[in-house]
Amino acid sequence: MTDSTDQLGAPWETVQQIIASADAQGLESFLERIGPANTARAISRIAPEDRTRLLTLLDPDAAADVIEEVPEAQAVDLIEALDPKEAAPILDEMASDRQADLLGDLDRPEAEAILQNMAPEEAADARQLMAYEPETTGGIMITEYLAYAQQQRVSDVLLDLQANQEAYADYNVQYVYVTDDQGRLKGVLRLRDLLFTPRQAALEDVMITGALQVNTADSLDELNEFFEQHELQGAPVVEADGRLVGVVQHDDVQAASTRRADRQFLGVSGIVGGEEFRSMPLLLRSRRRLSWLSINIVLNIVAASVIAVYQDTLAAAITLAVFLPMISDMSGCSGNQAVAVSMRELALGLVRPQELARVFFKEIGLGVINGAALGLCLGAVAILWQGNAYLGLVVGTALAANTIVAVSIGGLLPLVLKRLRLDPALVSAPILTTVTDICGFFLVFSIATLVLPLLTG
Amino acid sequence: MTDSTDQLGAPWETVQQIIASADAQGLESFLERIGPANTARAISRIAPEDRTRLLTLLDPDAAADVIEEVPEAQAVDLIEALDPKEAAPILDEMASDRQADLLGDLDRPEAEAILQNMAPEEAADARQLMAYEPETTGGIMITEYLAYAQQQRVSDVLLDLQANQEAYADYNVQYVYVTDDQGRLKGVLRLRDLLFTPRQAALEDVMITGALQVNTADSLDELNEFFEQHELQGAPVVEADGRLVGVVQHDDVQAASTRRADRQFLGVSGIVGGEEFRSMPLLLRSRRRLSWLSINIVLNIVAASVIAVYQDTLAAAITLAVFLPMISDMSGCSGNQAVAVSMRELALGLVRPQELARVFFKEIGLGVINGAALGLCLGAVAILWQGNAYLGLVVGTALAANTIVAVSIGGLLPLVLKRLRLDPALVSAPILTTVTDICGFFLVFSIATLVLPLLTG
Repeated sequence: MTDSTDQLGAPWETVQQIIASADAQGLESFLERIGPANTARAISRIAPEDRTRLLTLLDPDAAADVIEEVPEAQAVDLIEALDPKEAAPILDEMASDRQADLLGDLDRPEAEAILQNMAPEEAADARQLMAYEPETTGGIMITEYLAYAQQQRVSDVLLDLQANQEAYADYNVQYVYVTDDQGRLKGVLRLRDLLFTPRQAALEDVMITGALQVNTADSLDELNEFFEQHELQGAPVVEADGRLVGVVQHDDVQAASTRRADRQFLGVSGIVGGEEFRSMPLLLRSRRRLSWLSINIVLNIVAASVIAVYQDTLAAAITLAVFLPMISDMSGCSGNQAVAVSMRELALGLVRPQELARVFFKEIGLGVINGAALGLCLGAVAILWQGNAYLGLVVGTALAANTIVAVSIGGLLPLVLKRLRLDPALVSAPILTTVTDICGFFLVFSIATLVLPLLTG
Repeated sequence: MTDSTDQLGAPWETVQQIIASADAQGLESFLERIGPANTARAISRIAPEDRTRLLTLLDPDAAADVIEEVPEAQAVDLIEALDPKEAAPILDEMASDRQADLLGDLDRPEAEAILQNMAPEEAADARQLMAYEPETTGGIMITEYLAYAQQQRVSDVLLDLQANQEAYADYNVQYVYVTDDQGRLKGVLRLRDLLFTPRQAALEDVMITGALQVNTADSLDELNEFFEQHELQGAPVVEADGRLVGVVQHDDVQAASTRRADRQFLGVSGIVGGEEFRSMPLLLRSRRRLSWLSINIVLNIVAASVIAVYQDTLAAAITLAVFLPMISDMSGCSGNQAVAVSMRELALGLVRPQELARVFFKEIGLGVINGAALGLCLGAVAILWQGNAYLGLVVGTALAANTIVAVSIGGLLPLVLKRLRLDPALVSAPILTTVTDICGFFLVFSIATLVLPLLTG
C-alpha cells in the first residue's frame, strides 16, 4: 500500500541531515515519502532544537500536516517550543477543532500570544471552540461548514460551490445547511439532491426540514448514541437558541472516543497526568510515574500493617507467609476482572451507575463459584506442599471468602466511582487492591488464630 | 438531544409487556423511542425466549436494526437462538461487513444453514467477505459501492443514480468508481464533480486517475496509517490483480480499531476468550474467568516457592513478611507503567519491536531514579516503623534493585511478545508479575541473609 520503509533504516538520520542542509523542499518530499508513522517516529528521535528547526523550515501548511501526524501530547510540546509568531501561521492551516485542542492544552499566556498572531477569523473560530468543554459536542465540532439563507436559490449554492472550489476543498461537503436571518438552522440539503433539483428553486422549498441536530452541550456518550442510532457522517450543531454554530463529524466523535479509551488504558496502568512518550525528558517521565507510585506505597503500607499486627501469629506459623502474597495477588486478579466488566458495561450503557443491586447479585453468585474453585485449589496446594491439612483449610477458606469480597467490590466500585464523578479507570485498581489486601490478610490471620495450635502442631 | 428516558423507569418491563401482547407495531415504535442504548439494555434484561420472540415479532428490517445496536458478542447469541429460516431475512437487511462478522462468529453448520436461506446475492457477498481475515481490509470493507464501466457517460451515471435512489439510499455515495472490462479500478469521480461536468462526457475522460486504493490484504494498522495520511471518508479496495472488490470506510476502520482497543483493555484485566456481559449464563462467565485465574495461581505458586525456600531466614527475621507483599505490589505497579508506555508506543508506531536497545536505555535511567526514590522511601518507612536500620537497608535496597528490573522487563516485554506474535495485552501482566515477584523475593532474602545477625539483633 504505502512504500515499505523498513529498508530506509533510520529515517531520522536522513531527516537530521536534510535539516542541517536547510533544504525545505527536500524535507517536505522526504517526509511525504516516509509517511506519517515514520515522520512521527523520526520527530520523537531527533533533538528538540532540530524539531523546532524542522517546523520553521517547512512552509506553514506542511508544518501543520506534520503536527497533525504526531500524538497530541507531542504536538503541544512542538508548538510550545516555537515562537508565537512562528506557531500562529502553522495553526492557521489546521482544522478548527485541532486548533482549539492544541491551544487549549497550552498555558494561557502562550495560547493568547499565538492567537494574537493568527489570522483574525481563524483566531475567532478557535476562541469560540475553546470555550466549550473538550468532551462535549462543542469541543468536538468543527466550524468549517456551508450555510445559506433560506431565501437563496439552488443556483446560488451551485455558483458559490463552483466559485470557491479551492477554499472548500478541505471542507467535508456532503450537506449544505439552510438558516433563517437569525442564523437558526431551518433545514438541510444533501449534495446529491442538488443534482436533481431545479436550479431556480428557493432553498426553503426544497430543503429537508426537521433535520437531525445536536446541541453544543451534548456529551461524548450522547454523541456516540446519536451516531449509533443514525447512520450519518456528520450532524449540524446548534446552540440552545437554535443558532447553527458548527458541524460534528462521526469521524471526530470516534477519534475522541478512541482518545478517551487510550487515556483509560493508560490510567489503569498507572500512567496519569498526561500521556508519556519515551521522547519526553527523563525527569518529567520519572516524576509523573512516581506521583502514582507514591500513592500506591502509602496504600501498601496500610495493607501491610495488618500483617504487622499479626506478627506473633505469623511467627508461630511461618508457612503462612508463603501464601500471603498469593492471596493478595489472586484476589486482586479476581477483582480486576469484575472491574473490567463493569467499566465495559458502563461504557456501553448496559448498566447504569444506580444499578448496584443488579451488579452485586450477578457478582456474588460468580464469587461463590470461583471462590470455591480457587479456595479448593489453593487449599489442596497447601496440603500437598506443606503437609498440613489445617494450613490448607486456613488459606483455602481465606482465599474463597476473599474472592467473594473482591468480585463484589470490583463489580460495584466503577459504578460507585462514576456516581461520585471520579474516573473509575484511575481509582479502581488502587482502592480494590488495598481493600482486598487488608481483607485477605485479616481473613488469613483470624482463621489461623482459631486453629493456631493445630497449625504449628 | 434524544428523549430523556430516565423517567421511563425500567424500559424492559414495557418491552416484555409489548412482546406478551404481540404488538409488532407498538414494539417497533417503543424501541425507536427509547433509543439504541436503552434497547440494548432492555435486551440484556429480558429472558432469552423473550429475546427470540422480540426479533421474530419485528419485521426483518427492524430486527436487523436491533441486532446492530447490541454488542457483537450478544448479537451472535441472538442469531444463534433463532431458526436459520428466521435469521436469514434479518441478515439480508444488514450491511455486508456486519453480515460477514456475525456469520463468521457462528459455528460453521449454523452459518451455512443461514446462508442457504438468505437472498442469493446477499449470501454471495457475505461468503466473499467471510473469506478474509477479520482484521484485514478484506474483513473490514463493505461491498455496497457504485462502479461504472469507463466507456459510460456522465449522463448514464446520473440516470442510474436517479432511477435507483431508493436502492442506493443506504449506500454511502460520495464517490463512484470507474472500472475497465476486467473489473479493474481505473479511476474515481467525486459526486460533487458530477455537478459541474458535461453530461455527455465519457467517464474515462473526466475521471480522476491514479486514485488512492488499498489492498484486501492490508492490515488494520496499515489502514489506520492510510487514513491518517489521507483525509478521506473511504477508499476503494482492490485484489492483488487490481480488480475492485469493495470499499473500506474510515468509520469502519475506526470502529474496528476501537473493538481491538476494547479487547485489549479486557485482556489486560483478565477477561479473555471473548467479551463478558452480565446477561450471559453464570457458568460461562465463571468458567472464562477461572481459565485466566488458574494460570495465575500456578504462576503465583512458582513465585511463592522462593519464600518457601527461605523460610528459615524469614523465621529469623519475621518483620520481613510485612514487606514482601509490598515489594511484590510496588514492583508490579512500576513494571505495568512501563508495559503501558511500550504498548502505546507500539500501537502508535513510535517504536518498532526490534528497538529493544532504545527502550532498555530509556527505561533503565528511569528505573534508577524511581528505584532510588521508592527504595529510600520504603527504607525510611521500615526504619521508623520497626526501629531497625538494617531492615530498612534490606527492604529499601531490594525495592530499588527490583524497580530497575521491573521497568526494564516491563518496557521490553511488549516488544518481545510482539516479535513472538503473542498478544502483549494478554501475556505481559502475568509474566511481569511472576518475574518481578521471584526477583523481588530473592533480592529481599539474599540481602537479608548477608546481614541476618544485624536484623535479628
